[in-house]
Amino acid sequence: MALDDQKPSGFKFVGTSPDRPDGLDKVTGRARFGADAYAPGMLHGAVVRSPHAHARIIRIDTSKAEALEGVKAVVTRADFVDGLQGEFGFVLENVMAGEKALYDGHAVAAVAASSQLIARDAVKLVEVEYEVLPHVTDVDAAMAENAPVLNDSYADASVPAGHHPNVVRYHDSGHGDIDAGFAEADLVIEDSFKTEATHQGYIEPHACLASLGGDGKGELWCTTQGHWIAQKTCAALVGIDTSQLRVTASEIGGGFGGKTTVFIEPVALALSRKANRPVKIVMTRSEVFRATGPTSSTSMDIKIGMKKDGTITAAQGIFRLQGGAFPGAPMEFSAMCAFAPYALANVHQVGYDVISNRPKQAAYRAPGAPMASFAVESVIDELCSQLDLDPIDVRLKNASREGTKASYGPKFERIGLVETLEAAKAHPHYSAPLEPGQGRGISCGFWFNHGGETSVSLALSEDGTCQISVGTPDIGGSRASMALMAAEELGIPYENIRVTIADTATLGYNDVSHGSRVTYASGLATIKAAKDAVGKLCKRAAAKWGIPEDAVYWEDGCAKPSGANAGNFDPMPLAKITKSMGRTGGPISGHFEATPEGAGVSFGTHIVDAEVDPETGKTAVVRYTVIQDAGKAIHPSYVEGQFQGGAAQGIGWALNEEYIYGEDGRLQNSIFLDYRVPVASDLPMIDTVIVEVPNPGHPYGVRGVGETGIVPPLAAIANAVSAAAGVRLRHLPMSPPRILRALKDKG
Amino acid sequence: MALDDQKPSGFKFVGTSPDRPDGLDKVTGRARFGADAYAPGMLHGAVVRSPHAHARIIRIDTSKAEALEGVKAVVTRADFVDGLQGEFGFVLENVMAGEKALYDGHAVAAVAASSQLIARDAVKLVEVEYEVLPHVTDVDAAMAENAPVLNDSYADASVPAGHHPNVVRYHDSGHGDIDAGFAEADLVIEDSFKTEATHQGYIEPHACLASLGGDGKGELWCTTQGHWIAQKTCAALVGIDTSQLRVTASEIGGGFGGKTTVFIEPVALALSRKANRPVKIVMTRSEVFRATGPTSSTSMDIKIGMKKDGTITAAQGIFRLQGGAFPGAPMEFSAMCAFAPYALANVHQVGYDVISNRPKQAAYRAPGAPMASFAVESVIDELCSQLDLDPIDVRLKNASREGTKASYGPKFERIGLVETLEAAKAHPHYSAPLEPGQGRGISCGFWFNHGGETSVSLALSEDGTCQISVGTPDIGGSRASMALMAAEELGIPYENIRVTIADTATLGYNDVSHGSRVTYASGLATIKAAKDAVGKLCKRAAAKWGIPEDAVYWEDGCAKPSGANAGNFDPMPLAKITKSMGRTGGPISGHFEATPEGAGVSFGTHIVDAEVDPETGKTAVVRYTVIQDAGKAIHPSYVEGQFQGGAAQGIGWALNEEYIYGEDGRLQNSIFLDYRVPVASDLPMIDTVIVEVPNPGHPYGVRGVGETGIVPPLAAIANAVSAAAGVRLRHLPMSPPRILRALKDKG
Repeated sequence: MALDDQKPSGFKFVGTSPDRPDGLDKVTGRARFGADAYAPGMLHGAVVRSPHAHARIIRIDTSKAEALEGVKAVVTRADFVDGLQGEFGFVLENVMAGEKALYDGHAVAAVAASSQLIARDAVKLVEVEYEVLPHVTDVDAAMAENAPVLNDSYADASVPAGHHPNVVRYHDSGHGDIDAGFAEADLVIEDSFKTEATHQGYIEPHACLASLGGDGKGELWCTTQGHWIAQKTCAALVGIDTSQLRVTASEIGGGFGGKTTVFIEPVALALSRKANRPVKIVMTRSEVFRATGPTSSTSMDIKIGMKKDGTITAAQGIFRLQGGAFPGAPMEFSAMCAFAPYALANVHQVGYDVISNRPKQAAYRAPGAPMASFAVESVIDELCSQLDLDPIDVRLKNASREGTKASYGPKFERIGLVETLEAAKAHPHYSAPLEPGQGRGISCGFWFNHGGETSVSLALSEDGTCQISVGTPDIGGSRASMALMAAEELGIPYENIRVTIADTATLGYNDVSHGSRVTYASGLATIKAAKDAVGKLCKRAAAKWGIPEDAVYWEDGCAKPSGANAGNFDPMPLAKITKSMGRTGGPISGHFEATPEGAGVSFGTHIVDAEVDPETGKTAVVRYTVIQDAGKAIHPSYVEGQFQGGAAQGIGWALNEEYIYGEDGRLQNSIFLDYRVPVASDLPMIDTVIVEVPNPGHPYGVRGVGETGIVPPLAAIANAVSAAAGVRLRHLPMSPPRILRALKDKG
Repeated sequence: MALDDQKPSGFKFVGTSPDRPDGLDKVTGRARFGADAYAPGMLHGAVVRSPHAHARIIRIDTSKAEALEGVKAVVTRADFVDGLQGEFGFVLENVMAGEKALYDGHAVAAVAASSQLIARDAVKLVEVEYEVLPHVTDVDAAMAENAPVLNDSYADASVPAGHHPNVVRYHDSGHGDIDAGFAEADLVIEDSFKTEATHQGYIEPHACLASLGGDGKGELWCTTQGHWIAQKTCAALVGIDTSQLRVTASEIGGGFGGKTTVFIEPVALALSRKANRPVKIVMTRSEVFRATGPTSSTSMDIKIGMKKDGTITAAQGIFRLQGGAFPGAPMEFSAMCAFAPYALANVHQVGYDVISNRPKQAAYRAPGAPMASFAVESVIDELCSQLDLDPIDVRLKNASREGTKASYGPKFERIGLVETLEAAKAHPHYSAPLEPGQGRGISCGFWFNHGGETSVSLALSEDGTCQISVGTPDIGGSRASMALMAAEELGIPYENIRVTIADTATLGYNDVSHGSRVTYASGLATIKAAKDAVGKLCKRAAAKWGIPEDAVYWEDGCAKPSGANAGNFDPMPLAKITKSMGRTGGPISGHFEATPEGAGVSFGTHIVDAEVDPETGKTAVVRYTVIQDAGKAIHPSYVEGQFQGGAAQGIGWALNEEYIYGEDGRLQNSIFLDYRVPVASDLPMIDTVIVEVPNPGHPYGVRGVGETGIVPPLAAIANAVSAAAGVRLRHLPMSPPRILRALKDKG
């Protein structure tokens, strides 16, 4: 579908794809990323990390490091707030180990020195005495009876009795009668699946510059998806007022969920306070892999029953997610998303959050959903195959629609799954012939949208141009989409609007850029803030004309008298009102703060053709089509980018990416040479279709598009590979060794 | 008067003097001033300046400079917008000369290079061919018939026919019948006075870091008193949208009015655009003296008539101000302030704005008023002396009060001049005995307050702390006073509030920090923004309690049910409401934008004892007392600081500071060794009395205090010196050579 066909009537700016505002900055190197900050007198920090997967810390001797010329401060856990509970407690424990190092790479101390080289030398001089303990890194092994115990106090009340203490949270949901449902089926398939941990793979490592005084006032510059959560968390960890820490989000070189928490930031603050100097820390790639959050690895059991006509009679899933050394693996999202595309009378899903001696998992685009989809959609594919049914027809037959009771509880409002399936069926890709050795797979995918706390302010300049402050770091084009929405409301050109990611000191609270929420929530807030300003513009015009405020309306960037009784005045353009605003009452701004509640869910359907080389086991993705409901595409080319990015990352996850741990519990592939993300030559052109079924909870119908795109690829590719190879692949990634083994097992 | 005595009842935080929030940053070097900015790939700029006071620019050859290794860009006037009119046109002409260089130090080109040294070398390689023209630097000489003409199109319509084209603006005001008034007098004194140009003498030179792309989007970091005016002006000069230029004000190392315009900032932007790299420029001290704005030099004629009982019957003043090469000398402020302390039936004042071959004058604390006061208060002192009247009694007899028709037109509202005179009369200083060789002088002084466009936003954090964004750079303690006012409204401790000077991209328009407006206008806006937030807090409490919004009021940092019908609930503290704000509607912020109209004027009275050494001509100020109406002192120790700073700068102006030009029109004393500002050992302890006569136009009664303090010193010191030396001093500064000459002339 050409983009032009999707531009709805009624919009002047929304639905166009003008140049991105950050384009020139990024191609000329002017954009300032995390590592591009500098402060006079700045020191460089480096972190001492555990080489052991599980070890008691007996003693830390920092004296030799402190004695090194150029070293200005060394911190350990003692330099942070004591006794923190709950999420802040887990974050602190991850940021700086207390009694035990819980994974290879876990921070145990940090130094600040006058140069990065001296800091790294000093790291080697910090003497840590460890008592090495038994470790576990596999999810199933961590749940086994004799598994080493990481912490016997992490499990919460949700966990049924009888589980190993490494099972720390439990989820159980569903409706209907599962057993009755399976009894109705003509075919029931029950199968097990595993996926390995993958990293978000952002190109920019974590980096920050921190300055904290003994007066409890500080500043922090960092690459982050959410500087308010960084503000709140860091303030808690170093023991200062939230408001006294000003956090600025740098330009961000990728996050994908992995930059929604803090790692080195509180460490840099603690070092700065101790050294009385600004401290910069930039992670190496190896530190990023070893000590920031990959996804969970999983172990899943799926059972689905189907009638001969394709009706799903019952579905059950067990999702075990390994989330590293702390609670938080998104097993409930796995459970909730697994069957969401289907209107099911009988459904049951169970989730386990399992800790192990690995880095704490972090969010990665639709956390938990891609793995669940992989398992569920593989079984549906197998059912279709065995019952000789068209996989799109089967999905259409069972598809969730407006009014469907979702597998996770609520009733769906207006949703666009059926439209994506119909578009898939009609797409030339679905009927294109396949070459020998190729297979085609499809999959549906579902993800929530999140509203979240949002603040936006907007100010007009005398020359009639506009600047907007938003608090959600731009991880996918939101500066462009905010400007388009404000242009639509104000009636001034997109080019006359500047959108800035405000720092925490200059705007109200904003949740993280996550949950596909930014274009929805910051967009809604931008529209409301613009309407606030428009109200003030109309008021100024009314005062000038000497008519009542309600006799003025706004259209095409002008105040206009409303109706015959309002008087006969020429339309007053925005720039004419702003030119005199200082003399007619003062500056004109617009504001909006809320936690919007109308976020819409989003569905997508992907079609993949894959070709497997039976000699090498190498898979080539030869054709890929993403079809997804965007609600309303504000800037269609950015939406396409999100679709393509989700597919590309999904291809990496499906085929090659995985955390490989040795017997010693150490990560063996912590650089990009060994951890294999897809590069341009690994990818086909990824075709996209933007479906627009408006979200009733947004003024323009926006649904978030950032996450759904990574949900279907694992399953779609697995289905394509299974078709091509003639054998079902149940363990991701489908790397050449695993393909070869599967082919060999098939015989 | 002890500060404690001045703390009014009814305030909990306002009127106390807690630690300044920027204290630790400044003493530890953490505060980031203009020159402390850095950007990756940054170049260094340097400016080519005219060595001639007046010269036609025949040709500029930049080829040798451009050929120097490391030079990345050279700009001349051709790199700026063509055809700018009005104030922007004058600023551009000053920032980069067009057809003519108009003063020694006038910028004619600029270079950007990879190091500061290379940039300075390149400056020497820019070949400028000049045709040197006759020049004039003295105000009286510039008005003379045969004076060289700087520009025959600068004079505006206000100038009566027959004046030299160097007279570019004219002011005439007053009321009553001057001739009849002088006829009523028992004694009429007519005298002439001169003052020399002085520099604001801020310790921090102008410095900026600019980055501007070919896409018309830019960033500017600079030391400034007003980043919105810098934004607007720079955008106009380089031809981009105002909103597309984000300007951040650095910490400021003194401004005093001199950092209210731009000099190097547009140059750095133009260089950056041409080089495609960030460009930093830091002025040398010599550049600050030669090319930024000192005060006007003046020539003044005063005529005052007095009855034997001290009644002033008529007053007339002619104020000729030399303002450098462009229109704008504040002669109307000289005229309007000169007689403002007195209720006069007959008054007439005339002002001349005269251009000459000097740098464009800039504002300096109460621009124009100190010189006028020097002349007027000297004549009043002479009248008192000749009529044997007490100078305070005479001033009390004629003092302006509430309802007085001011010499410049309007009726005064509630003012505090009489109270300062009464406090002066009662002060032990006024009755203390003098040593031989010492003299005592007093003077009154007046200055307006300005409202100006103002925007303030305030946000609450979950932990119940608060952050405030203001747009007025903190030049005298405003972060502390804003925090105190917000603490008062919100009922939370001062220490839990952070005040940030927001950049232009994150707040609505704000006028410059000038006109003694900040504590008044940003303070008023802070109070209103806090009230806006308090309204929202009460609303959340009402919702929680299930009672109407108007049944809740705010007191002592808590929402409380109002009246018996509201229900019986425990007070709900701010932190309890903010803790759940994300779930009860979203972030809580407060906003206010306006151009407040209720700025109050302010008066002061100074008492000075001076001792003149008849052998060397050196004057020592041996005792100094400042008495001034602050309306309401929000942070009394900062108010004291403003009083003392005004007196200290006035002492320098009165006794030593002056611009000295050679016959060649070149500035001869452009470093601090030759331009003599007072150092600590030159100053006595400056005693202060804070009078508080509330300004009815501010919720707490605030009057600005930043400027009035520099109005009386020139006259008070001149009166003291004249008394000590036994001869009237009519030309500032009263440097040793001038004192010796006066003593010699007296014989």
